[in-house]
Amino acid sequence: MPLTTPLTDKLGISHPILLAPMDMIADARLVRAVSEAGGFGILGGGYGNRTWLAQETAKLDGLRVPFGIGFITWSLAKQPDLLDIALAAKPAAVMLSFGDPARFAAAIEQAGALLVCQVQDEAMAEQAIAAGADILIAQGTEAGGHGASRTTLDIVPAIVDLAAGRVPVAAAGGLADGRGLAAMLSLGADGVLLGTRFYASEEANGAEEAKRRIRAATSGETVRGIIFDLSRNNVWPAPFTGRCLINDHARRWIGREVDLLQQVESVSADYMKARADGNFDIAAVIAGEAVGLIHDIPPAGEIVARIVTEAEHILQGRRNSSWPLRNEIERVR
Amino acid sequence: MPLTTPLTDKLGISHPILLAPMDMIADARLVRAVSEAGGFGILGGGYGNRTWLAQETAKLDGLRVPFGIGFITWSLAKQPDLLDIALAAKPAAVMLSFGDPARFAAAIEQAGALLVCQVQDEAMAEQAIAAGADILIAQGTEAGGHGASRTTLDIVPAIVDLAAGRVPVAAAGGLADGRGLAAMLSLGADGVLLGTRFYASEEANGAEEAKRRIRAATSGETVRGIIFDLSRNNVWPAPFTGRCLINDHARRWIGREVDLLQQVESVSADYMKARADGNFDIAAVIAGEAVGLIHDIPPAGEIVARIVTEAEHILQGRRNSSWPLRNEIERVR
Ligand SMILES: Cc1cc2nc3c(=O)[nH]c(=O)nc-3n(C[C@H](O)[C@H](O)[C@H](O)COP(=O)(O)O)c2cc1C
Ligand SMILES: Cc1cc2nc3c(=O)[nH]c(=O)nc-3n(C[C@H](O)[C@H](O)[C@H](O)COP(=O)(O)O)c2cc1C
Repeated sequence: MPLTTPLTDKLGISHPILLAPMDMIADARLVRAVSEAGGFGILGGGYGNRTWLAQETAKLDGLRVPFGIGFITWSLAKQPDLLDIALAAKPAAVMLSFGDPARFAAAIEQAGALLVCQVQDEAMAEQAIAAGADILIAQGTEAGGHGASRTTLDIVPAIVDLAAGRVPVAAAGGLADGRGLAAMLSLGADGVLLGTRFYASEEANGAEEAKRRIRAATSGETVRGIIFDLSRNNVWPAPFTGRCLINDHARRWIGREVDLLQQVESVSADYMKARADGNFDIAAVIAGEAVGLIHDIPPAGEIVARIVTEAEHILQGRRNSSWPLRNEIERVR
Repeated sequence: MPLTTPLTDKLGISHPILLAPMDMIADARLVRAVSEAGGFGILGGGYGNRTWLAQETAKLDGLRVPFGIGFITWSLAKQPDLLDIALAAKPAAVMLSFGDPARFAAAIEQAGALLVCQVQDEAMAEQAIAAGADILIAQGTEAGGHGASRTTLDIVPAIVDLAAGRVPVAAAGGLADGRGLAAMLSLGADGVLLGTRFYASEEANGAEEAKRRIRAATSGETVRGIIFDLSRNNVWPAPFTGRCLINDHARRWIGREVDLLQQVESVSADYMKARADGNFDIAAVIAGEAVGLIHDIPPAGEIVARIVTEAEHILQGRRNSSWPLRNEIERVR
């Protein structure tokens, strides 16, 4: 029983599971692993490191399965020619998040790539559709990294209703297993986009200690705010804030943003040193509420296979009238 | 294809849909409507108005289908004998929320009623199970009224995993349609508990203007905080805050809690007058993020039937391999 949807059709993939374009973490190796497993890997273009983008896209040359490249829209606007490097790599899709995608839409379409837009509310979704988006990602506040305040359970049906079948919608934020995929399909989404789950994979380009902390963290041990953005002198435009694991640094400064700002030079010097040293008591591990569902660091392809198998069992459980679904879930685990 | 689960078995009901014990809003008439439709009505015992409780339980006398009665635990602790009035009405279950249920568990069990505990995190769930809870409600921050900060998508799988089949788990917070029920069953829950959706029903004991505002509100137009609790001199113990529709009063005071506190006497006089006058620009309409999914004020029995039909179609859609589920959803709407 393959879980094919309008999203898998449009992207030409086997499973409705997308890798989030996590800056640096989602490098060519991770993209390849997800795409070769039948999902859709999206390279993290992030804040626009030109050398890195050229190097990683080069590694994707010759990949025989579809993949994408993602940018932070407001950041890409500062170096718009990075899009040319991306498009030269022949991605099946370019994903834009956090800002108006309109000015980039024509170039993406001309290159024959699909435009995927990650949105956090209805106004952004309308803007994306008006710009010609082919696929929407509805991102809830549970997400790791930057996002806004509406929850996944709230925003996904809202965007599904708004899209009304014009474009496929994938859900993002707090999803890490087959239960989450089955739940999002039940809400009317056509698939899911996962960040944190793939961060804790063998191939992800992250520090081992960061992966270990994601694996160890339990549900409720992340926080959304601007402490880590403040600490690295990179505060985003409203309504965006960032979610990361709660660590000593977060505990120290949450609720004291003004104090931090008033001594930002010394705090950010310490923060940058901690980042360089891999000291995650101070440097943030960017991760979402899905940490509670993550207990291992397997190969990314295994993550894809596991989620698909579990979701299929859950949704098929009904066929055999075998309630509760929990039994189905346990059978496959 | 009836959606029976361990929850429906335990409560002896037809559909896995519970009415939240909304103080005053969930009166005997609404309880009767939900229970007679095959769901499980729970009377709002709320802050403990003795006369009201006696009057409403009297109206439930002779009801031939199971129903429950709910209390705010920390409030019941101040007038523990209210539990006797409740138990005398022979409810199938007593629901306790917000506080340690331990001291009431024995009396409830002796009366032959089930103990239902609403919890917001893992520690509360452990406490409830230790006290002998027969059913857990995992409540997410999307919920109308009091609650905490974890999202429904986060807390439901966490509590399902923790319960590990020992007791059925229902999901609460942000749910209002068949998609939500299907999604929660997919996450491993055994049913749902709905407040806001039933507030906007014919039978609910609420002001017409409040129901009208719930119907009119779109997704994202609620807020969680302590403004309305501050304004009525009723601040709850941590970690509980309350969610309501955003109105002029909320807009005026959010982020200015200290200012409000410093002039609380005049603010609360105005607030109480507004409540008495039904002026919902100042008085809060207690409601959750599900408002975005609510577009009418039908009889409660119709709400139950609609949610069940939609969820069945969604979950059955897989049987016919007819993706996307959206088509199934539209077919039944
Ligand atoms: C480590 C990390 C880095 C991220 N970086 C980006 C980014 O550069 N661009 C982007 O659009 N989204 C980024 N995101 C957000 C993802 O696009 C996605 O919305 C999120 O990971 C989904 O939630 P989840 O982490 O719970 O799966 C990042 C997420 C994480 C966890
Ligand atoms: C108007 C209103 C009043 C409520 N009053 C109570 C209450 O007295 N006791 C209680 O345990 N929960 C109360 N709740 C919370 C519910 O138990 C439940 O968790 C919530 O309604 C579920 O979220 P939903 O509103 O999105 O369906 C109330 C909710 C609403 C909307």
